Amino acid sequence: MRAHAWERATEIPLLIAGFLFLFSYSWQVLADPSPEVYFAWELVAIVVWVFFGADYVVRLILARQRVRWFFRNILDFLVLVLPPLRPLRLVRLLVLVRVFRRNAPRLIRNRILAFASIATVLLVYIASLAVLEAERNVGAITTFGEALWWSLVTVTTVGYGDYTPVSFIGRAIAVGLMLGGVVLVGIIVGTLGSWIIQSVSEDNEEAIDETTDAVIALRDEVRQLRAALEDQGVDTEKRL
Amino acid sequence: MRAHAWERATEIPLLIAGFLFLFSYSWQVLADPSPEVYFAWELVAIVVWVFFGADYVVRLILARQRVRWFFRNILDFLVLVLPPLRPLRLVRLLVLVRVFRRNAPRLIRNRILAFASIATVLLVYIASLAVLEAERNVGAITTFGEALWWSLVTVTTVGYGDYTPVSFIGRAIAVGLMLGGVVLVGIIVGTLGSWIIQSVSEDNEEAIDETTDAVIALRDEVRQLRAALEDQGVDTEKRL
Amino acid sequence: MRAHAWERATEIPLLIAGFLFLFSYSWQVLADPSPEVYFAWELVAIVVWVFFGADYVVRLILARQRVRWFFRNILDFLVLVLPPLRPLRLVRLLVLVRVFRRNAPRLIRNRILAFASIATVLLVYIASLAVLEAERNVGAITTFGEALWWSLVTVTTVGYGDYTPVSFIGRAIAVGLMLGGVVLVGIIVGTLGSWIIQSVSEDNEEAIDETTDAVIALRDEVRQLRAALEDQGVDTEKRL
Amino acid sequence: MRAHAWERATEIPLLIAGFLFLFSYSWQVLADPSPEVYFAWELVAIVVWVFFGADYVVRLILARQRVRWFFRNILDFLVLVLPPLRPLRLVRLLVLVRVFRRNAPRLIRNRILAFASIATVLLVYIASLAVLEAERNVGAITTFGEALWWSLVTVTTVGYGDYTPVSFIGRAIAVGLMLGGVVLVGIIVGTLGSWIIQSVSEDNEEAIDETTDAVIALRDEVRQLRAALEDQGVDTEKRL
Repeated sequence: MRAHAWERATEIPLLIAGFLFLFSYSWQVLADPSPEVYFAWELVAIVVWVFFGADYVVRLILARQRVRWFFRNILDFLVLVLPPLRPLRLVRLLVLVRVFRRNAPRLIRNRILAFASIATVLLVYIASLAVLEAERNVGAITTFGEALWWSLVTVTTVGYGDYTPVSFIGRAIAVGLMLGGVVLVGIIVGTLGSWIIQSVSEDNEEAIDETTDAVIALRDEVRQLRAALEDQGVDTEKRL
Repeated sequence: MRAHAWERATEIPLLIAGFLFLFSYSWQVLADPSPEVYFAWELVAIVVWVFFGADYVVRLILARQRVRWFFRNILDFLVLVLPPLRPLRLVRLLVLVRVFRRNAPRLIRNRILAFASIATVLLVYIASLAVLEAERNVGAITTFGEALWWSLVTVTTVGYGDYTPVSFIGRAIAVGLMLGGVVLVGIIVGTLGSWIIQSVSEDNEEAIDETTDAVIALRDEVRQLRAALEDQGVDTEKRL
Repeated sequence: MRAHAWERATEIPLLIAGFLFLFSYSWQVLADPSPEVYFAWELVAIVVWVFFGADYVVRLILARQRVRWFFRNILDFLVLVLPPLRPLRLVRLLVLVRVFRRNAPRLIRNRILAFASIATVLLVYIASLAVLEAERNVGAITTFGEALWWSLVTVTTVGYGDYTPVSFIGRAIAVGLMLGGVVLVGIIVGTLGSWIIQSVSEDNEEAIDETTDAVIALRDEVRQLRAALEDQGVDTEKRL
Repeated sequence: MRAHAWERATEIPLLIAGFLFLFSYSWQVLADPSPEVYFAWELVAIVVWVFFGADYVVRLILARQRVRWFFRNILDFLVLVLPPLRPLRLVRLLVLVRVFRRNAPRLIRNRILAFASIATVLLVYIASLAVLEAERNVGAITTFGEALWWSLVTVTTVGYGDYTPVSFIGRAIAVGLMLGGVVLVGIIVGTLGSWIIQSVSEDNEEAIDETTDAVIALRDEVRQLRAALEDQGVDTEKRL
């Protein structure tokens, strides 16, 4: 079995596993379940983790140059063996980047927008859940709505300060959200901005590349020159 | 009747309808009118909406390839059929983008600046009205001046936090303002910045494109070469 | 007398007048002077304004195409006839841009950095003075140090919110500072960033422009070709 | 002894001295030591300073054109003779930029990311220490954790305002952090952003430079032409 076939076959299961993972965490945080239900969801998370690990091992085995593959996918390895702290293990969803890459839109701009938007939505959602879990009993953030509002205010760097995390874990999540979010929002703003600029100026045809034009005209002249020489019996393709 | 003629004929009515729409909403929020006056303005908003819808239908009928036109203008359709929630329906003003496109300045930079400035002013004004309506009775934002100040502090991502929305609708408006505003302000900052940079360095002539120069010199040499060969009786334009 | 000679002759007086203008406003705000001293500085400000106006009129008279000159320098006109509200009239210092342009560093990057830095320092200083005057008796900003701190926190869009203006004039100044400052700080950040990037990668020689190289090699080949043809008695410079 | 040999020989000692310098300051601030221990660390800082000074003098002596070297390294001089105020003297660590430059990754992007990341980490760490020392007894920032949180919130321009400096020195440090940090974070965001964009669109091969292609095709044609002429007995390399 080839690596490509495996990747194609595992796409749907990976997506389902990813959503299960997200869903188990969401349920544990949002529904405030009884210990039994909590434990059941914990089991789901562990099963998904084992599945991610098995997928990793299979891909390693199927790779042609295993050492090279290992180092080129070092991030996948690190994500798998991260200490299973609650918020940290959500980073495992990074394995879904592979599924995205195989199914992304063809057009570069749409591709980038799709990637950055999905990543931002996931980041904001996960940060909201994680900060709610960390701050619920110690800080001002006590509902999911407040956590989401705080995440959005933070990720756009507006930073009102009406809600701020106070625990160590909450602040660590906030720093991750700031760093990751600033990059992703920067990408979205830049891409949307260039799209608006282009769509506003769509009638404009002035930006012709003079150099390319001159070179193409030049090539035509040289071709005519060569054709003329050939007419005189010069074999212009003999050497070189 | 052709689509272009229709677009030219409806420009002024569309602008007037847009201003009426904005005016009816402003009056309802700012003047705190009696139920009768409020209802009168509500009627105006509905009439404008019907007018926007009729314009859409006419354009759809006049289009050559109707299915293709429908999908290329899907945004116009979505905006029309949006649930008529108070702040959401202001999005209908997006139909005015068409009027802008037909009358915008020729020069790209002026065009972009004009578009981004008008859009920012409208966004800030609408967000101020909407947030005032949503927060007036539940939060700290109680006058239009405070709402405007809050909008400007938010749209530049300064985010003092002296006024912040507390209701769900208020916060939803804030998120829209942050996302839309960050993109628009980014465009304005980038365009103004490049304008200042260019105007500060206007005496500078050093940035000559060496490649273009070399290619032009080269083309001249090849032309001389060809002229010389023609002098010797070689027909250099025969083939190709 | 020619326009250039006039501009050269008025450089030093303009600079002195500008500093006098700034100094008179600073003294009025910071020293909290007696009415007589306050009035004396007010007179200085008026004299400077008259001087700016006289300079404008002389330049208009000396211009070759007066109508064209008027529209190309419309900003200078608007600044001069602005209503003489206290903070607004500081905008008159924009006439000094002319002095900057004639004496700026040759190198583009230094030129841009010098312009943006001077403009930012002036903007922050003037905004601090103006906001102090507007807020001293109504808000939390009561010393020049607090006003300066507030300006810097605002201009970088950090926006802690520990000090915020509450009066209409104070907030109008804040909006001007945000808009102007965001553009200027954006320019400084961009220029410094590109300078750091370049200085960090200074040993790197890999970024050779392949196109330019290929074109230069090509030009040499064509020159050899032509020289060889000339050797055979072909006059390659005859036509064209 | 040559300048290069000296620079290679002093790399490790400079790094050690830099870490000692940082460590002595950290200990003085964080461990709240007895006066004797405090004084011992103060001695270490002075010894490191003398070492930095000696290194500077040796490099000046070894330079070929000493006056030119002095002006090209004016920053090193200024940093050395800065008034030895506590937070200011940490700027002396800028001498380590030299060590970085000699050992940085080859690839431009990695180089820039490495530089900006190290500089940001150092800046945030030093600003946290300095602000803690300045504010511990007068403001809300009383632990290193709070100082670090404040630094990160400031450097990303989120600026919640839950902790803000109130002393003059604390605010001066904050301004330095804002200015330096905004530039460094801008570089990191830009570089990471372009890396994500590139890695997301890695299958894309459409962006071929047409000009380069055309020029290369053209060069081949000219070479064939020349070879053909040489075949006919024309010496194409004679002149030029």
